[in-house]
Amino acid sequence: MTNFKALIQYDGTDFNGWQIQPDKRTVQGAIEEALRIISGERVVCNGASRTDAGVHATGQIANFHVKLNIHPQSLIKALNSILPRDIRIIEIEEINESFDARVHAKSKIYIYKIWNDQIISPFIWRWYYHVPFSLDFESMAEASKYFVGEKDFSSFTSHPSSNNFKRTVFRSELLKKEKEIIYTIEANGFLRYMVRNIVGTLIEVGRGKINPSSIPEIIDEKKREAAGPTALPSGLFLDSVIY
Amino acid sequence: MTNFKALIQYDGTDFNGWQIQPDKRTVQGAIEEALRIISGERVVCNGASRTDAGVHATGQIANFHVKLNIHPQSLIKALNSILPRDIRIIEIEEINESFDARVHAKSKIYIYKIWNDQIISPFIWRWYYHVPFSLDFESMAEASKYFVGEKDFSSFTSHPSSNNFKRTVFRSELLKKEKEIIYTIEANGFLRYMVRNIVGTLIEVGRGKINPSSIPEIIDEKKREAAGPTALPSGLFLDSVIY
Repeated sequence: MTNFKALIQYDGTDFNGWQIQPDKRTVQGAIEEALRIISGERVVCNGASRTDAGVHATGQIANFHVKLNIHPQSLIKALNSILPRDIRIIEIEEINESFDARVHAKSKIYIYKIWNDQIISPFIWRWYYHVPFSLDFESMAEASKYFVGEKDFSSFTSHPSSNNFKRTVFRSELLKKEKEIIYTIEANGFLRYMVRNIVGTLIEVGRGKINPSSIPEIIDEKKREAAGPTALPSGLFLDSVIY
Repeated sequence: MTNFKALIQYDGTDFNGWQIQPDKRTVQGAIEEALRIISGERVVCNGASRTDAGVHATGQIANFHVKLNIHPQSLIKALNSILPRDIRIIEIEEINESFDARVHAKSKIYIYKIWNDQIISPFIWRWYYHVPFSLDFESMAEASKYFVGEKDFSSFTSHPSSNNFKRTVFRSELLKKEKEIIYTIEANGFLRYMVRNIVGTLIEVGRGKINPSSIPEIIDEKKREAAGPTALPSGLFLDSVIY
């Protein structure tokens, strides 16, 4: 058995998320099917992050154990020839037997992209949250800073996925590039919908409905109702996984 | 009746081309349906170019006569709120009653994009012809020059759409930007599949199957079999229309 580590990109628009589900089009399902065709066996593709329906990845990492004596470059070619065009295997390397893409991740970086203009081009709508009304960028950038540190993020998760809501955010910053507002967050782990709930809250700040300085209170309340709505999945990208 | 001139963009991937057809998803069909909803009447949207299935536009021009006393900016908003996301109306202006987007076009510019690398990103495959084998760019660029001038393009049209095969090409050039090869052609008119057949021929040149200097003979033969195959629609964009 060889343990392979893969760098995977996908346009999540037409997928029901990463995680395999019966009768649904999922990224994990498509990759495991391609691995089954190549190896003749059932192979589990273990992703670093189970991205939700509609969420994209430019830097998903996964590992899989497979009984194949194949050069990584040949495996990339074989997989890409089978996979649908909205998934691409970018890199593959052999890695030590014990490497686990999910368990061994030290941190992950997510990026969320907002298109803030009247019209969004028909060529980019898949990868943005289109906000046609004006946003106060300075207030949003100020608010984004309050998420850094070890905090209980109960206010920012809709479906509690654990009973430990503490996560450490290493980086939380907002950038403006012409019509684009780009949010970058790095943390040692993420609760379900955490990034989208933070962005939904930042947009409320941008609309003047939430004061940036009240973010610490919203965090302290530890209640989902205290924060803003969940932003659309279309703007969210798993950017990278750090080991 | 007001005559409106519109600048329209679309991702042609999921359309059966510009021209309206019963029970098919077409760009003209979608726009005419939106105009009908807004005006309550049947409106004909007259496009400068009837782009084929799978072909995109960043600069389609159309005009339509409609009994509406509406500001162009409001009409843009109303149309975009109804249209699917893969079509956007970018600009609208009132224009003199006699303007006809198709008849009055002096020339059109098409762009064809080739992605020349092993792997194409899942975020851009819709807008390229992916060529994974190596291409001799210099030969292709040399070949592209022979298309300039007033010529009979019978060798480059699959479905004769007229009995006059003469067109004047003002510009025909190839550019390389890292992994991208971009072909630009401007002419006073185009025969059906003409750009895709020229590009298919240029790719044969790039593979070493056709000598660049034999392009004038291929043109002179006036037979479809003399030229290369038809390149995929995914790489083709109607870039602009000049009046």
